[in-house]
Amino acid sequence: MADVLTIAVDAMGGDRAPDVIVEGVAMARARFSCARFLLFGDEARLAPLIAAHEGLGEVCEIRHGTESISSAERPSQALRHGQNSTMALAIKAVKNGEAAVAVSAGNTGAMMALAKFILRTLPGIDRPALASRVPTAHGESVMLDLGANVECDENNLFQFAIMGAAFARAILGLERPRIGLLNIGVEELKGNEAVKGAGQNLSKTPLPLEFIGFIEGDGIAAGDADVIVADGFTGNVAIKTAEGMARLMHDLLGRAFATSLLTRFGYALTRRALKTELRLFDAEGQNGAVFLGLNGLVVKSHGGADGRGFFAAMELAMEMAADDLCGTISANIEKIADAGKDAAQAAAS
Amino acid sequence: MADVLTIAVDAMGGDRAPDVIVEGVAMARARFSCARFLLFGDEARLAPLIAAHEGLGEVCEIRHGTESISSAERPSQALRHGQNSTMALAIKAVKNGEAAVAVSAGNTGAMMALAKFILRTLPGIDRPALASRVPTAHGESVMLDLGANVECDENNLFQFAIMGAAFARAILGLERPRIGLLNIGVEELKGNEAVKGAGQNLSKTPLPLEFIGFIEGDGIAAGDADVIVADGFTGNVAIKTAEGMARLMHDLLGRAFATSLLTRFGYALTRRALKTELRLFDAEGQNGAVFLGLNGLVVKSHGGADGRGFFAAMELAMEMAADDLCGTISANIEKIADAGKDAAQAAAS
Repeated sequence: MADVLTIAVDAMGGDRAPDVIVEGVAMARARFSCARFLLFGDEARLAPLIAAHEGLGEVCEIRHGTESISSAERPSQALRHGQNSTMALAIKAVKNGEAAVAVSAGNTGAMMALAKFILRTLPGIDRPALASRVPTAHGESVMLDLGANVECDENNLFQFAIMGAAFARAILGLERPRIGLLNIGVEELKGNEAVKGAGQNLSKTPLPLEFIGFIEGDGIAAGDADVIVADGFTGNVAIKTAEGMARLMHDLLGRAFATSLLTRFGYALTRRALKTELRLFDAEGQNGAVFLGLNGLVVKSHGGADGRGFFAAMELAMEMAADDLCGTISANIEKIADAGKDAAQAAAS
Repeated sequence: MADVLTIAVDAMGGDRAPDVIVEGVAMARARFSCARFLLFGDEARLAPLIAAHEGLGEVCEIRHGTESISSAERPSQALRHGQNSTMALAIKAVKNGEAAVAVSAGNTGAMMALAKFILRTLPGIDRPALASRVPTAHGESVMLDLGANVECDENNLFQFAIMGAAFARAILGLERPRIGLLNIGVEELKGNEAVKGAGQNLSKTPLPLEFIGFIEGDGIAAGDADVIVADGFTGNVAIKTAEGMARLMHDLLGRAFATSLLTRFGYALTRRALKTELRLFDAEGQNGAVFLGLNGLVVKSHGGADGRGFFAAMELAMEMAADDLCGTISANIEKIADAGKDAAQAAAS
């Protein structure tokens, strides 16, 4: 990891800002000695919160700003009126090289619009995508797009695969991540045109990734792929369905354990083992989604995250920044372009 | 319920036919005194299996047939070569009025193609859909389409809503089921054109159903809607994602309980309560998917179901047959058509 990594923090985004934001920053500082923080927000509120943590002031710089974007604001409104918001200022710090990554718990749509407007997409990438971790039988996989693009063609899906592979490399440490296209069957004939076309292109790519073909919905939790690629509609529905089902089972477990004195005792005996096995279903610990495909790194924390949750999003930000994620995506997109040119020349000669 | 309901059973479909099929039939006979069974399959194999259950022969009639459709066969092949298969014969028994419903654990794609070819779609329905139950925080909801139609327009989704409402009425006993359209946000502006268009049409329908608008993926398990409507691609991914996540949590629970002697003891104390709370996650007990929108009822059992699983699919078949599901769908489609004519006349006059 580099000597110093600076994180730009939107200190006013989310339901519980700025208190939980500063809490998360304090945790990140304890974990990463190389981290420095640019906090964008109301100085009068931030200064005492920072002062409450001994020594935190030494690694934090407050950039005063009071404009914020509400959760109800539309992306188009955010673009028109939000250019001086603390969210936009944090993203601009990435753009001008002051920070390696920006983190916000604010409005997702606004963040996507502002990040795309300020940072622009990487050369060769048509559309950025939203990616996140998902718990599986083997640990964790990554999944994208989670809702940035309602409709996608085969080229979008192909680019998502490249972006997702770089993301998996950065945060899961995999040299050759296994890529799966989410579909309604594993046979080649199944699915819509976009999925079929992307499958054909991925099966002949020269990149350091392993395309394992189509996977079905139950393959997500089974850990069949390290990177699950979908259009934003399907991906969003899938990840939220998975979250909802995990929450339901969690609630039903709680109800079962609360049935009687005996079941309460049973819970006391198994609590620690349950916590260990179900650790990846800890929403706070797994918090953090990423906009991939931009000239710069932007991480979205859940709006309702607590300090530990915001810390998890910052941890994700640190891992990506340390791995030069954008550089990996660009290099792979160039390889694809070169391979395309070679193929075209070979065909022409 | 009618005095006698006859079920046409494909006795040769699925991985464990005909043994588990006859087991399921025996259970259905114990549960439903009004049930009669037409078993399509190899008489030499079926006769001794039936004879092993005292009195079962009195409510069963074997229709000899030995042609079956393999799980690898494509729908088009099944249509060409499978017209005398036990699956096709069972569906034809519904067509010619001998049975109220057909049940098979065979090849899904073949069953869909044969059912559509033999029974035809109901007037006013463009495409049949595959529907099933899904466990929620409030008990059960129904969801469709689960994969019969990869791409759907707003009219398809609208018709699915009507079909799903009739299904919910039949198997959940709801007079005014709450219909939700699966989407990536709850705001009116979210989603693709098909979802937005169907949402507008549903919000002004005169039918006895309550359209609650869009729901997100996590609304499925939360029980936000009684009927969850989606195109076949999204619905298939969502239900399989939910199944996969439930299975993963189940496996992790098992691992946690197996950690030590103490956790095993803890499990012994909570086992019964867990079983009660998680009963809806019992794959065998919840087995059975339905093709809606045809001139006749067809139920698909999971291919790997055991006797209890096949019984659950037959139970679903009985509930639907007793409720005149096709009649309800037809009546509602007619109401919509009449309302459309009235509106057109009003506009013309």
